[in-house]
Amino acid sequence: MDYTEKKIKTINGYRGLIVDVDLDRIELPDGETALREVVTHPGGVGILAINDKNEAVCVRQYRYCFGEHLLEIPAGKLERGEDPLECAVRELSEETGITAGKIVPLGSMYPSPGFCSEVLHIYLATGLENGEAHPDAGEFLDIVHVPFAELVDKCMSGEIRDGKTVLAVLKAKIYLDAQSAN
Amino acid sequence: MDYTEKKIKTINGYRGLIVDVDLDRIELPDGETALREVVTHPGGVGILAINDKNEAVCVRQYRYCFGEHLLEIPAGKLERGEDPLECAVRELSEETGITAGKIVPLGSMYPSPGFCSEVLHIYLATGLENGEAHPDAGEFLDIVHVPFAELVDKCMSGEIRDGKTVLAVLKAKIYLDAQSAN
Repeated sequence: MDYTEKKIKTINGYRGLIVDVDLDRIELPDGETALREVVTHPGGVGILAINDKNEAVCVRQYRYCFGEHLLEIPAGKLERGEDPLECAVRELSEETGITAGKIVPLGSMYPSPGFCSEVLHIYLATGLENGEAHPDAGEFLDIVHVPFAELVDKCMSGEIRDGKTVLAVLKAKIYLDAQSAN
Repeated sequence: MDYTEKKIKTINGYRGLIVDVDLDRIELPDGETALREVVTHPGGVGILAINDKNEAVCVRQYRYCFGEHLLEIPAGKLERGEDPLECAVRELSEETGITAGKIVPLGSMYPSPGFCSEVLHIYLATGLENGEAHPDAGEFLDIVHVPFAELVDKCMSGEIRDGKTVLAVLKAKIYLDAQSAN
């Protein structure tokens, strides 16, 4: 069935630093009206980088939204007009200093399609060469090497809660298990 | 290392229907200041329900943020003070009419910890009994039964992009594979 909702007009909104919000009055498929609140976000990338010792290169950083330090894969926002793969190469280099010999796309995800337009592009990087990290001003993080099997366990147990990290790690596990079975 | 960021003051914001936004000036660990934009969301649940034929009960609905119909697991927002498990039981019943004999937690996820406080609690439901769906007013959806192995393939290929659906399906696959190996 076609359940397309048609915008009638925007009745409130917010123009922010990273996100914008529009509160729209819309027409439902049955002709009734309703409100939809849409957070617009530029989107970004996440990169699971696995080294020759089968360790994932993770970053531990403070997340102000939760008041917690979280262990995550390297990630960052797309700059205007930036290609997602170029963004992945840039963010991996900035946060960890690493350049990757091989980068495979693991697909894109919509973190919160009910209210937010954010799209994250996820990559698996291997054939890593170390270099000097050069984080953005105001970006503080520790680089943590985690054996890949241990990272899978941390995702399965719920210890790691960052959505893009869990998604990347579990996709990579199933992808790499299938490769090694062939 | 402790990279805690301290709030100095809120300098802009938005009070919305579902989300609020605060733009805060904060103090960084090195004493410099920066801005952090935080979207506050009530959080919610996602329920992967698998029937006796090993089919997942999915919902296909229009997502206004993307202008697309998406295939997702049943899900919904927490009401104020609501227990996540009770919310999962309620949303599964409202969207599909199903009651589950067994519900196992698959952990919680932060869809976008960089800017949004949303927490999603994910469950695996089995032992399903069918009943009458009773969606909220203004909620239009089709119920679609997808063989679980096919749903895993759709998540791995990137055809399914909804983060909570991919996370729930891949966690359940690894969890169920480990159970059947024992």
